[in-house]
Amino acid sequence: MAEIQFSRGITETDVPKVGLTRAKRGSSSTAKFIFENPTVFQEGNTQEVTGMYMIDEEGELKTRNVNAKFVNGQPATIEVLYLMDSQAEWDRFMRFMERYAEQHGLGFSKSK
Amino acid sequence: MAEIQFSRGITETDVPKVGLTRAKRGSSSTAKFIFENPTVFQEGNTQEVTGMYMIDEEGELKTRNVNAKFVNGQPATIEVLYLMDSQAEWDRFMRFMERYAEQHGLGFSKSK
Repeated sequence: MAEIQFSRGITETDVPKVGLTRAKRGSSSTAKFIFENPTVFQEGNTQEVTGMYMIDEEGELKTRNVNAKFVNGQPATIEVLYLMDSQAEWDRFMRFMERYAEQHGLGFSKSK
Repeated sequence: MAEIQFSRGITETDVPKVGLTRAKRGSSSTAKFIFENPTVFQEGNTQEVTGMYMIDEEGELKTRNVNAKFVNGQPATIEVLYLMDSQAEWDRFMRFMERYAEQHGLGFSKSK
């Protein structure tokens, strides 16, 4: 099991693109998520976006770095930056992503 | 360092898309590589494709499951299937892919 939530307990079913970057030397790295059509913004949906939660068998990773982009005055897409400051955080994140990718048919491709 | 070669000692600089699939229960999994514009087929290049070698600091992974697709009578693109039969092989492959992805700016996206 590996899933993403924007509001606790509610699964986000839109599958994002995820770009990865790492600093050349340091241990800092970034994952940028783009949700083109998040269910959280679908009509009639009143849940509040409180952050992004990545949940798997090991537990939960979370960030508050969640930004909505507006189209015609309505929130339409979501961009999330997930920042990691150590190799251990990166390793943990990649374990989540492996599980999430397997489950949702993601592969690797040019992230830009 | 993480690189791919089709002929020993010669780096392939075209960056592939990589789709991942895993069996629901068993430990078998597959990575499908697609090279749209491999340097190995560029004009004047006479190297022989003897397999696909994935090389990083831990050593080498290889497969002979390499197929060229022809356009106008010329080999144009390459598809490679890399098959894994255990969790350990998958883990080793993902360590290679993490390194390769970092170095070549790959992220995760729908592998279709």
